[in-house]
Order: sequence, then C-alpha cells, then structure tokens
Amino acid sequence: VTPLAVGVDVGGTKIQAVALGDAGEILDRERGDTPHVVDAVPGSTLAGAIESVVTTMLARLRTSPDDVVVGVGVPGMVAYDGTLVFAPNLPSANGARIATALATLPAHWRALCENDADCAVVAEHRLGAARGIDDVVMVTLGTGIGGGIISSGTLVRGRSGFAGEIGHMVVDANGPRCVCGGRGCWERYASGAGVARLAREAAHAGKLPTLVARCGGDPDAVRGEDVTGAAADGLDEALAVIDDVGWWLALGIANVVAIMDAAHVVLGGGLASASSVLLPAARRHLGALVEGGGTRPVVTIVASQFGPDAGAVGAALLASERLA
Amino acid sequence: VTPLAVGVDVGGTKIQAVALGDAGEILDRERGDTPHVVDAVPGSTLAGAIESVVTTMLARLRTSPDDVVVGVGVPGMVAYDGTLVFAPNLPSANGARIATALATLPAHWRALCENDADCAVVAEHRLGAARGIDDVVMVTLGTGIGGGIISSGTLVRGRSGFAGEIGHMVVDANGPRCVCGGRGCWERYASGAGVARLAREAAHAGKLPTLVARCGGDPDAVRGEDVTGAAADGLDEALAVIDDVGWWLALGIANVVAIMDAAHVVLGGGLASASSVLLPAARRHLGALVEGGGTRPVVTIVASQFGPDAGAVGAALLASERLA
Repeated sequence: VTPLAVGVDVGGTKIQAVALGDAGEILDRERGDTPHVVDAVPGSTLAGAIESVVTTMLARLRTSPDDVVVGVGVPGMVAYDGTLVFAPNLPSANGARIATALATLPAHWRALCENDADCAVVAEHRLGAARGIDDVVMVTLGTGIGGGIISSGTLVRGRSGFAGEIGHMVVDANGPRCVCGGRGCWERYASGAGVARLAREAAHAGKLPTLVARCGGDPDAVRGEDVTGAAADGLDEALAVIDDVGWWLALGIANVVAIMDAAHVVLGGGLASASSVLLPAARRHLGALVEGGGTRPVVTIVASQFGPDAGAVGAALLASERLA
Repeated sequence: VTPLAVGVDVGGTKIQAVALGDAGEILDRERGDTPHVVDAVPGSTLAGAIESVVTTMLARLRTSPDDVVVGVGVPGMVAYDGTLVFAPNLPSANGARIATALATLPAHWRALCENDADCAVVAEHRLGAARGIDDVVMVTLGTGIGGGIISSGTLVRGRSGFAGEIGHMVVDANGPRCVCGGRGCWERYASGAGVARLAREAAHAGKLPTLVARCGGDPDAVRGEDVTGAAADGLDEALAVIDDVGWWLALGIANVVAIMDAAHVVLGGGLASASSVLLPAARRHLGALVEGGGTRPVVTIVASQFGPDAGAVGAALLASERLA
C-alpha cells in the first residue's frame, strides 16, 4: 500500500499540517502554535509540537503511524540531512534537526525536512500554478522572502541544500540592516516586514495623511495591513506605497530572472493575500527592470494556486517522492 | 572519425580561435579583430570575420572543413537557436544569428553559438579549475561581468537560454546607470569598467595622491590598470581601492551563492589578470556577506585555469558535445 503523505509547514506563529490523498487532494488538516523555545537539543520542542499536530490529525484519519511519511517545511537554510542550519526569521529553531528528532519518536515515522519555499514550489510545479512549466521561481512573501527554484524541471538544491535563499540577495548595498546580519537584503523591501517599513516611512514623510488620521494621527501606528487593505479599497495614497513595494518586488524578480532565466514566477506566502494590488504593481515594473526586457519573452507573475497550503502540500509531495 | 573541435571567443576587441585535440589540448590558435559594423542582416560581418580567423587556422592544420564543428562564444543573451539577442557590451552584434550565418557559408561547418561565460564555465568544469565540482559559478570580469552556472553538474540555461546574466543583477538600486539600461548593476562595480569608475572616484576624492601625481596631476587620467598594477606592487592607496572592488565582487558572489548554493567560484576574464590582488580581497569579504556565513561550508574562489582561453576552449567542448 502507498503510505499516507503528511505535509507540515512551520511558520513564525503556526504549524499547519495536511494529509494528502493519492490525487493530491487534501484529506484533512490540523493546526497548532509554533513554540519559540531554545532547547539544549535544538528543535526538540518544535519536533514535539509537530508530532502533536500530526498525531491529532492521524487519530481522526484512523491511520496507523506505520503507514505515514512526513515532510516538514521550515523557513531557512536546510541541509541535506534535514538540519535547519540557519533561520533568520525563526531564530529559536537555528540548528534544529527536525527529521532526526521525528525519527526518534515512538511512532517511527519516516520524515524529511526541507526549506518551506522549496516545498511550495514543488506543490505549484507538480499540481498548481506552475504545472507543466520547467523554469519557475516561487517567491513566498511572509515576514521575510523565501524562494524555491525549479530549473529544467528539477528543484535546484545546491551544494549543501541551501539554494533558493533569494530573500537575502542584496539589492541595495547601502540599505537597512537585515535580520540575517547583512544589509539591504531584498526582504527588507518586498516582504511583510518590507511593506511595514515602507508604510511607516511614507507615513512619517506625510504621504499617508488619510491612513495616519485613521490611526489617531500617529504615523508609527500605520501597519502594513492598513496600507494593503486601503490599497485594495482603491485609496490613492495607499496605492502609491504599494506601487513602491511592487517596484522592489519586480527588482528582485528581475535579478533572479537574469540569473535563472525563469519563465514563470509564482507569488505565495502570507502577504500574497494582498496579491490583488501587489501583482499588478510588480507586473507593471518588471519589463523595465529585467535585462533585455524588450527582447526577452514576457515573464509571467501569478499568484500561488495553493495559497497558504502550498508549503504543507509540497512537503507532503516531497515526502511521497523521496520516502515512499 | 571524430570531427575537429574549434572554439571561438568573440570579445569586445578581439576574436580568438582555438583548435582542440581529443584530450582537450590546444592544437593551434588564431586571432583577429572584432568588427563593429551594424549590418542589414545582423552579425553577417561578424560571422565573416569568424570564418576568416577559423579558415586561416584550419589551413595551417590541413584539416578539411567537412570535419569541423565550431562553437562560438559571444558576450550577451544567446537564445537556443544561437541568436545573440541582446549584447549590452557589444551593441553592434545585437540580434546576430551567428550559427545560422556560419551554416550558410560555403564550408558548411556545423556551428553553434553560446554565451561566452557559459562556454568558459564548461571549460573549467570539464577540464579546469572546477573539475569534479557539481555546483559552480564562473564570473568573467571583462568590460562587464559575464556568468556561467553549473548546478548539480549541468549547465543552467533557462527558458530561452539566457540564464547566467549575473552582471546585470542589481546590487545598488540607487546606483549609476548601466549600459543595459538599468541602474546599479553588479558590473558597474566589479568589472573592468567598475574598477575604472571606482579608481576615478577615489582619485577625485584625493585618495590616490601618488597615482594622480604619476598621471601629471590629472585625476581623470588614472585608469583601472594603473590601480591594479600599483596594487600588485603593494602601493597602499591602490590596495585600498582594490579592497573596495573586492568587497563589491564578494557582494555579488554572495548573492549568487545565496540563490544557487554554489561550492566554488571561478574568476576569469581580462580583469582576472589582476587576480593576485583581487582574489584575496574578495575572499576576505565573502564570509561576512553571504547569508549564514558562519554555518555554511566555505565557498572557495579561485582563478580560472584556462585564463584568456576559457571561452574558446569551452566553446569547442560544447561544439563536440552537442554537434559531433
């Protein structure tokens, strides 16, 4: 019998699990909170939380643990042995050996751990918005920016498994400090944190009078969500900030396209909920920013088909492909 | 019989051809001037000049043209059909269909055209400084910066064949205008043109008093070669400029490593003649610039083994692999 494929996506606040049917359909799902505990054995609390979420779901499905393969997607640099080596946006999990920790649990699941955006691009490539396309970049816009790259139909993993860390590509050498220790990384401009920062700057520069007034006159109270929400409602001052964010988003996409010659870019992650305003802005600017834009076939930018499920679905698919 | 493999490297000023033996040894070589003519049929003058250089060499080798495969490396975006679609540093060749033009010549050579840095990385990967390494980035430092990427042992070509255009990755969104039409591209900082620009800026800022004095007191007369030469001689003020260039070089390498997780970077191109001073500077800065530098295995940066022959040798190898 084919084992049941379970996928888990570990985010900054939530752990989300799905069970996947043979045709890629979601059979069930379960959520829990992401613990932020620095353990003596890195990641043991996180592995326990993952086990708990998956166990709850499996109990509902009445599936014996012997028949389960589990893929876990985590934000950061994941080595071939499944160690989360460096996680700038989830520092408590630095060094977490998730797959190893799950393998030592009583259930003896077969488990793997992979970068969350690598999982997401696998989901979109196999079953979603990039089906049938061989050169694809997935850009997950959350607190930071994650990346997953398919080149000639194959997931690009690199020497140690760390490939696709597009959020920490420097696009502004004199830019603000990043959580990774660098300066001017792409995710300082085009992620959730980037929108929040650009919104605050615009508020202080007097460019968001309506939104500042709505926040009781305090520019520091204007959040990224206020701007994306107001932009979706058509407020011009908010659309101007989103146009800026879209420019930065297009700039980073143009860089990755120059390097990889991708045909297709899929936007996912939490901020992709603002895709009704972000996508048009990024599309507007890409042609002028990508090298040889006039002679290059158009690079399409689309929203993730799996949305918030992309990471978990892709993790389950990778677990089937590699472990089943 | 195995056909003779000829490789041609088209640079901004010179066309260089080599004939390659079965073991990859250079049997003969020939040079000519690169024409800068905008033709009604783009690239026909260039194709004629390539034919002339190769014919001269073949006459010496007494080899019948029926037994020849020719690979041509050119700077810019080369499509799968061998068209040089966009060449910011060789604008007269924009749109040149080199391979097609050579195929219509009387000799009926089988010919292909590929990006010059893609050729160079193939040479280094098959026979040179990256032999046996599966994840490699070639950085050719000439007037601009070219790039060739090997991922999991395979040349990354992308959707249209344009992959590896690392020189036009934007690293400074507010930086100077680039020949490609963009702004703040990597090659504005770390190429031959970049060294020239940073040298001139340093001269005007009073940071190169000795070199300005040698140039008769005119800061505008200080050329990039003056700085790399003086740095090689140990002049501190020149070494400080080279340290800056090395920082920018390392910054772009760090970006490509974050995306591709390369193990090994090979520096080639004309400016690589300054590698005795540039390599240590780039190595010094890379660890602090690459994401997760403390947890990531060291990325080695080495000089090209084939030096100025890398492009031509790689073009010949690609012609053997694809056409023979």
